[in-house]
Amino acid sequence: MELKDLRVNGNRLIEAIEASAKIGATANGGLERCAATDEDKAGRELLMKWFEECGCKVTIDEMGNMFAVKPGKNRNLGAVLTGSHFDTQKPGGRFDGVLGVVGGIEVLRILVENNIELERDFIVANWTNEEGGWFSPACMGSGVWVGNITKEWAYSRMDRDGLTRFGEEIERIGYKGDFPADHKRWNVEAAYELHIEQGPQLYREKIQIGAPKGILCLHWYDINLKGTANQVGPTPMIGRNDALLAFSEMNIVVNKVAHQMGNMVATVGEIQNYPNSRNIISDGVHFTVDIRSWDDDHAVKAWEMMKREFEVIAARRGCPITTEETWKVEHAPFDKVLFERVLETAEELGYSTRRMISGAGHDMSEVNQITRGAMIFVPSINGRSHVEVEDTPYEDCERGVNVLLQCILKTANEI
Amino acid sequence: MELKDLRVNGNRLIEAIEASAKIGATANGGLERCAATDEDKAGRELLMKWFEECGCKVTIDEMGNMFAVKPGKNRNLGAVLTGSHFDTQKPGGRFDGVLGVVGGIEVLRILVENNIELERDFIVANWTNEEGGWFSPACMGSGVWVGNITKEWAYSRMDRDGLTRFGEEIERIGYKGDFPADHKRWNVEAAYELHIEQGPQLYREKIQIGAPKGILCLHWYDINLKGTANQVGPTPMIGRNDALLAFSEMNIVVNKVAHQMGNMVATVGEIQNYPNSRNIISDGVHFTVDIRSWDDDHAVKAWEMMKREFEVIAARRGCPITTEETWKVEHAPFDKVLFERVLETAEELGYSTRRMISGAGHDMSEVNQITRGAMIFVPSINGRSHVEVEDTPYEDCERGVNVLLQCILKTANEI
Repeated sequence: MELKDLRVNGNRLIEAIEASAKIGATANGGLERCAATDEDKAGRELLMKWFEECGCKVTIDEMGNMFAVKPGKNRNLGAVLTGSHFDTQKPGGRFDGVLGVVGGIEVLRILVENNIELERDFIVANWTNEEGGWFSPACMGSGVWVGNITKEWAYSRMDRDGLTRFGEEIERIGYKGDFPADHKRWNVEAAYELHIEQGPQLYREKIQIGAPKGILCLHWYDINLKGTANQVGPTPMIGRNDALLAFSEMNIVVNKVAHQMGNMVATVGEIQNYPNSRNIISDGVHFTVDIRSWDDDHAVKAWEMMKREFEVIAARRGCPITTEETWKVEHAPFDKVLFERVLETAEELGYSTRRMISGAGHDMSEVNQITRGAMIFVPSINGRSHVEVEDTPYEDCERGVNVLLQCILKTANEI
Repeated sequence: MELKDLRVNGNRLIEAIEASAKIGATANGGLERCAATDEDKAGRELLMKWFEECGCKVTIDEMGNMFAVKPGKNRNLGAVLTGSHFDTQKPGGRFDGVLGVVGGIEVLRILVENNIELERDFIVANWTNEEGGWFSPACMGSGVWVGNITKEWAYSRMDRDGLTRFGEEIERIGYKGDFPADHKRWNVEAAYELHIEQGPQLYREKIQIGAPKGILCLHWYDINLKGTANQVGPTPMIGRNDALLAFSEMNIVVNKVAHQMGNMVATVGEIQNYPNSRNIISDGVHFTVDIRSWDDDHAVKAWEMMKREFEVIAARRGCPITTEETWKVEHAPFDKVLFERVLETAEELGYSTRRMISGAGHDMSEVNQITRGAMIFVPSINGRSHVEVEDTPYEDCERGVNVLLQCILKTANEI
């Protein structure tokens, strides 16, 4: 059989997705398997078993990133890497991240059972804590690996309840390795990540494979407001400093600016209100703003507009404001050759395709910074993700892994 | 010395407030002494000591309400009762509730050291769990005593963490008495409660004594919104169902209606947002609305206006809404004779006075339902209460207790 005629084993792929779906399963059919928890440990043990069944040596680095290596004929050539993350949101679905990891493993299995030796090393990676669902921020493992954040800072991050540190917990579950979490210790020539779209475009247009030309920029801001706590009954409406009311006006500004400027999304997803008692006026609010656009300057301009309006509201309501830029990732254009290869490969396989932009961040946002990268998207039913009902038809999963397999065969045999 | 020339001992009053302030003291100068906790037990033991030093028999009822009785000459006449609560918010300040209890004790001490026998029994009460800071709802002890809630229901209430029941905890600290918690077992002719204002009016206008003509009505509503959770990046602005954004618009409606209608306060103090993650669109919000007015119908009309606007917002944002009326207390006018007596007595003492309305609920909201009641207010610095910095100048405390003393002398000698 010619390499171009190889196809993945759809039933085995489904079995792998379903085996994963049992580890951290929620009552509503979702998954809750946050990084550095007991569920993560169980998930990693399943991956170790699968990697070893394929005869791979597995390297675990200081961040818990896992790399299963299938050596190529020319070990001095740069490797081809694929992978995603086995952790989930709290709670999340069965496909986000999982598909890219089990897809990589299915490619490995096809290579092994067909005795295929590639020219280059092939690596399947499981990146630690892409979601940031329990320890924030997101993309922690790939972020350290690329060098955007330090290992020490990542170790010091507290869980959402403020009780444990990431460094202690990844050690506790036995996945804090010795190998440096540093891309310079590897020689990666190209990388692919297969992922569900997490948006509605492929599903609405009934397209089978999406090829994102890159990822939107991502700007995260944290805003704190101070109010004056008082018993609500005896405190007249005039003269109050109600931080929750100031917040409400600011949330409407975020939405208004995003609509007015277009070509962007902006969202307030998280709020903490203090003391959060029904008969006490709010004396403190923390909230987040998430802005994404293909145009970094456009996103910055939107934030500046929002911030100016926030300051007017804060002054009018007597609620002092502080703002902090928490995270900023520039828009990430993928490698043009690999991007075109995803499209062309999908078309060779007879699948319908669409050029698009990824609104979500991925480990590839990081990895793409130090090598040539590209992604393969499959449809999300109703565009739903980061929720327990997240779903993708198994036929679409299989198509995505076929595209991944053929892209890897082509790229890992280029010398 | 004539009775009308009697004055309280200001230094002794300060000592009592400061002794109380040590039991459950917080690092920031406030108090945390929630009902049925170890701190409450320690506070009650101090009260027992003080009551017994005054030669009073103390009755502890099934709710832990404490009644120290100084018998009058005519025991068949109805008694005059004063008192407030020794429990606090979590955390709260040093004056809310405490002043009314130690003020009653100071009156007792003046009567005892001057060998004054009143015509009627004089009772100083410590009502259990007025704040509802750990076991909700508020006014639990006086509420059972008056007959508005049952003892069994109060016993079954769980603490904020959902770990213990009120009935078990009040027993554990040794203050679940045998005497029925039932006003019908007592014969009360009149009641006064001295309290800090908890609002800014007296302080802003530099008035020494406030006489509330009654307490505002109190309507509590709970609102739930459903949205659609999605990853923020790949989900376009148009077509979102963002429950937190719908909430923000609703909070602005609450504020707008309260301002437009006037003669009322309306507040959103509490919100829970789900999943409350910065990169997931909100799919659920619970929030509260607290409406208070002297006019019950006005408050109901305000809620109806809010609710109509809420429904329009919910439909436009695609966020289904449910609303529930959680608690409703009608406005409570105090006894006109006692209300005028507070004003007249304060003026006789040379203090500046103001007629007002209480925005906060008190044990007197309950007690006033079964006897003639009135309250005496002293200023709250900057109107702050239910916070650790809650403060009232000691001279104002002393003035308040002088008014209480003279009101009691007058009322308890009426035959």
